Amino acid sequence: MKVVIAPDSFKGSLSAVEASSVMEKGIKKAFPKAETVLVPVADGGEGTMDSLVAATGGHKVEVVVTGPLQEDVKAEYGILGDKETCVIEMASASGLILVEPEKRNPLITTTFGTGELLKKAMDDGYRKFILAIGGSATNDGGAGMLQALGMRLLDESGVPVGVGGAELERIATIDNGQFDSRIEKSEFLIASDVQNPFIGPNGASFVFGPQKGATPEMVELLDHNLTSWADVIEKTTGTRLHDEPGAGAAGGIGGAFQAFFPAQMERGIDIVIRYTNFEEKIQGASCVFTGEGQCDFQTASGKTPMGVAEAAKKQGIPVFVLAGSIGKGIEELYQHGITSVHSLMKGPMSLQDAMNESHELLESAAEQVMRTFNAIYKK
Amino acid sequence: MKVVIAPDSFKGSLSAVEASSVMEKGIKKAFPKAETVLVPVADGGEGTMDSLVAATGGHKVEVVVTGPLQEDVKAEYGILGDKETCVIEMASASGLILVEPEKRNPLITTTFGTGELLKKAMDDGYRKFILAIGGSATNDGGAGMLQALGMRLLDESGVPVGVGGAELERIATIDNGQFDSRIEKSEFLIASDVQNPFIGPNGASFVFGPQKGATPEMVELLDHNLTSWADVIEKTTGTRLHDEPGAGAAGGIGGAFQAFFPAQMERGIDIVIRYTNFEEKIQGASCVFTGEGQCDFQTASGKTPMGVAEAAKKQGIPVFVLAGSIGKGIEELYQHGITSVHSLMKGPMSLQDAMNESHELLESAAEQVMRTFNAIYKK
Repeated sequence: MKVVIAPDSFKGSLSAVEASSVMEKGIKKAFPKAETVLVPVADGGEGTMDSLVAATGGHKVEVVVTGPLQEDVKAEYGILGDKETCVIEMASASGLILVEPEKRNPLITTTFGTGELLKKAMDDGYRKFILAIGGSATNDGGAGMLQALGMRLLDESGVPVGVGGAELERIATIDNGQFDSRIEKSEFLIASDVQNPFIGPNGASFVFGPQKGATPEMVELLDHNLTSWADVIEKTTGTRLHDEPGAGAAGGIGGAFQAFFPAQMERGIDIVIRYTNFEEKIQGASCVFTGEGQCDFQTASGKTPMGVAEAAKKQGIPVFVLAGSIGKGIEELYQHGITSVHSLMKGPMSLQDAMNESHELLESAAEQVMRTFNAIYKK
Repeated sequence: MKVVIAPDSFKGSLSAVEASSVMEKGIKKAFPKAETVLVPVADGGEGTMDSLVAATGGHKVEVVVTGPLQEDVKAEYGILGDKETCVIEMASASGLILVEPEKRNPLITTTFGTGELLKKAMDDGYRKFILAIGGSATNDGGAGMLQALGMRLLDESGVPVGVGGAELERIATIDNGQFDSRIEKSEFLIASDVQNPFIGPNGASFVFGPQKGATPEMVELLDHNLTSWADVIEKTTGTRLHDEPGAGAAGGIGGAFQAFFPAQMERGIDIVIRYTNFEEKIQGASCVFTGEGQCDFQTASGKTPMGVAEAAKKQGIPVFVLAGSIGKGIEELYQHGITSVHSLMKGPMSLQDAMNESHELLESAAEQVMRTFNAIYKK
């Protein structure tokens, strides 16, 4: 019996790679002869690079870049097994996770490091990129990334402005002359599920600013500055980002890709499913195990178990979700190919205990679900 | 598809009857066409009467008797569908549940009411009895029951002694003359898993006294008194209860049955499985759902899921256990026919919340397990 194991990470306790090997242990306990295929998956968020690198047999490259607060950080980019596609997680260079909670301030955080990471990958010869832009600490409309790639953003006196969301209002003109010319000759696939526009009540600042540390006053200012930046972009390139769906992704870096890059946006999970050759990997499988920390109605909007299930459904393969926590609305998932959803818990327990025991809980849940699924074969 | 639903109670939240109908709802959600057969089960403890009455289509009779502290209590006995077998739960008349925690004192609690209940059933014409003796509040060696049935327990002056564990030492002689003569003409099947002797370190007082409210000093006294009572019984009847396995069940009432009744003891779950015609009811079933509050290594020693699984194993039917809490050692259960064990929890939560939401949690767990089991049929 072939069993595919394709979980996302369980946030705060297990990476997708760890989760898949823990689940494999439980499944093998239940059915030692199972032929297991491990495909750690991610939906464009944290772990996307690892998932794609692992699934394709690629490798990773470490690069020191400028962090969100202009400190040095060790970032990574990944090269897929095809040796030509480069995966960059924006969070690796400009992520919220790199900034201590009390220092989070999107008026000063910058995407400069993401630009440097991209530049280094181009220096290394890569021209085909997948950019996962979840988890950013920034609200600079991608200005920092553009600066790192040679674009000069000048104030009214023709002097380059600094970095961070606060500086955007000072940009009067864009000097494209030294912008990295290799970008035009490259392909960029942006993994993003966000449809928010650049500015306004549904824009980057209002919707995502607060979770990056912006106070209500800062949110107003950030939105005002992004508007000014969008005006300058429109004046320079003709591209109007203001209401453009997706332009508000990751503090507006989505808009920068739309205006200055030969880029396409796609749902993260769809990119991962395609680049991991998932549909091929599950051929002939008797079942697929997937999982995530919290499974609920939101799972239906492009999260990992959903993408896994949609692929498996085409081949009529049952999909079991193991979740740390099961919320409301899971019945919506069935029509998308999810067979059932099981919790990891073994009884009443605290979140902290559950986190501490996540290995054992996940292994045991996988074992029991496999035993139940396998009941008929046994008989 | 025929699905048998045979849970025990989930203590503190759902009776076995409630649990079985809640599980049925979940199973029908997963597979509306399932033909469900509900067999609420018990293992000789709380709920045994209800289970047997429900499974055989019997009825119950209410009787006011003397409670453990000599107050009036409403007790019940059950009549099975065969209209001749009477089921008595000792806890209904002499149970720990009838005594507030601060009043628990086996020096004074009595089994008198159990004797009255039995007498009433004999008055009503019954001669075939199943006695479930779990959950007693007493440590009187069955003396109270015997007193209620006409046996005169006399002190050295020939005066009848009172009731409770404290009085046993004063018993010098037994006057059998007015002991209910219908007992000899009846059959008594005692449902008990306890193998403890009447007295000594493994006896009734030392092992079960503390959970009935006895302090260490009281335990010493109770054991001393039971020894004296066993001596009198031996002198009178020739039956030596002191080291007799099972004589220590339910505060020594086990010994009273052994000495004065035409009684046989049998594991509670085996009696329930036989009297519910369980093996017949599961014929042709695709699977059996069972459940209990806590499933762990102790489940293997005669608890409900175990008895259910042993019966199902003979017919090669998979058995799924739904448990409020899963403890250590469940792998021992597999060899006895249990296929898998699933928790009711949907995520980290407190015991109190789990109790409050037990209906929804059990329904949902049953639904998900049925969906997983059914995955292959669907495909």
